[in-house]
Amino acid sequence: MPSSSHYIFYLTPATVCLPVHWVLHELAPHGVTFEPRLVDFSSKAQRDPSYLALNPLGRVPVLVMDNQPISECAAILLLLSERHPAANLAPTPTSPIDPTVRDWFYADTDGDPEGAKWVKSMAEKRMSDGFEVLNNQLEGNEYLVGNSATAADYLAVCLARYSRVFTNPGLEWENVRALVNRMIQKPTWEEVNRLEGITGTWPQA
Amino acid sequence: MPSSSHYIFYLTPATVCLPVHWVLHELAPHGVTFEPRLVDFSSKAQRDPSYLALNPLGRVPVLVMDNQPISECAAILLLLSERHPAANLAPTPTSPIDPTVRDWFYADTDGDPEGAKWVKSMAEKRMSDGFEVLNNQLEGNEYLVGNSATAADYLAVCLARYSRVFTNPGLEWENVRALVNRMIQKPTWEEVNRLEGITGTWPQA
Repeated sequence: MPSSSHYIFYLTPATVCLPVHWVLHELAPHGVTFEPRLVDFSSKAQRDPSYLALNPLGRVPVLVMDNQPISECAAILLLLSERHPAANLAPTPTSPIDPTVRDWFYADTDGDPEGAKWVKSMAEKRMSDGFEVLNNQLEGNEYLVGNSATAADYLAVCLARYSRVFTNPGLEWENVRALVNRMIQKPTWEEVNRLEGITGTWPQA
Repeated sequence: MPSSSHYIFYLTPATVCLPVHWVLHELAPHGVTFEPRLVDFSSKAQRDPSYLALNPLGRVPVLVMDNQPISECAAILLLLSERHPAANLAPTPTSPIDPTVRDWFYADTDGDPEGAKWVKSMAEKRMSDGFEVLNNQLEGNEYLVGNSATAADYLAVCLARYSRVFTNPGLEWENVRALVNRMIQKPTWEEVNRLEGITGTWPQA
């Protein structure tokens, strides 16, 4: 057990914070506790100086451990996996897929609206390449790595969910879809969706 | 000291592998050893099945620890910082800036060449935003976090270097330039440049 297993977790519901939120709940049996703090985009809380002190880019999620803020979903998952080995969440493949998701959703505000369709197009291609890799890796396997769910599987499910608005959503890949259907049986999936106010059945049958 | 302090490091010279390479050298006094393995892009070694087994996306760097491959520069730096706390390399701010660098350099091959200028344009805007954040954070400070060089500083120097071909290279920000000039005094900077075959003075006076 690391020096601290209590975290402060800055999140915005129904965003890329979801996999971290889910994994924090999965870590509860391993002694992990956390204090969730909502970052309310509607009041621009992510631009508040107190929040920018945690992440100067003004993005969620941020996890504070031992008074040190860490940002980026994949980095936080990697760190949690490493710090709580008894949960067997490692190894956690890390990937540039979160920024890719951001490219898609923010193409016309982070960049020039005139070029947004090209940024989105490249993001979709990268996501498709990513799902192809995941699908191949899942061929003949129940989970991405080893015989139980690692942080990579939690992240993959959330990525598949974000991709539901894409031309080629992740569920179109058969093994990815099977993984999603396996993972969302976990009681914690329903719990975090309820806590984040996410409604509606997913995936559809 | 973690279970293992010996790593296998897959790298291609003069790429985003550089900050990891540099930090591995900085960790030598802390008992860290590593075996470098060259990934030769000219022979498409990154598409070789044996390499794809380590990183299905076929990208560098990959660090293998305890038989587990980890990819993505920022994630590797985070992990090394966490695993070798005596080196005081943590905290390591992580950022989506590596994929942004990739966007710039690979816009016309990863995406549609017709839209490459828009992808590059958004990448340059993100990099500028990033340097602005770094520059503000360095105001009145010698290092990004605390009173000594953390992994964030090593990464920042390398990002400033990659940006030398941009419209607004990182060295245009005064505090970033001062940080670069401070960091590159380290003997390990010259050493890794020599090992990677990087020639030419940088930054220019």
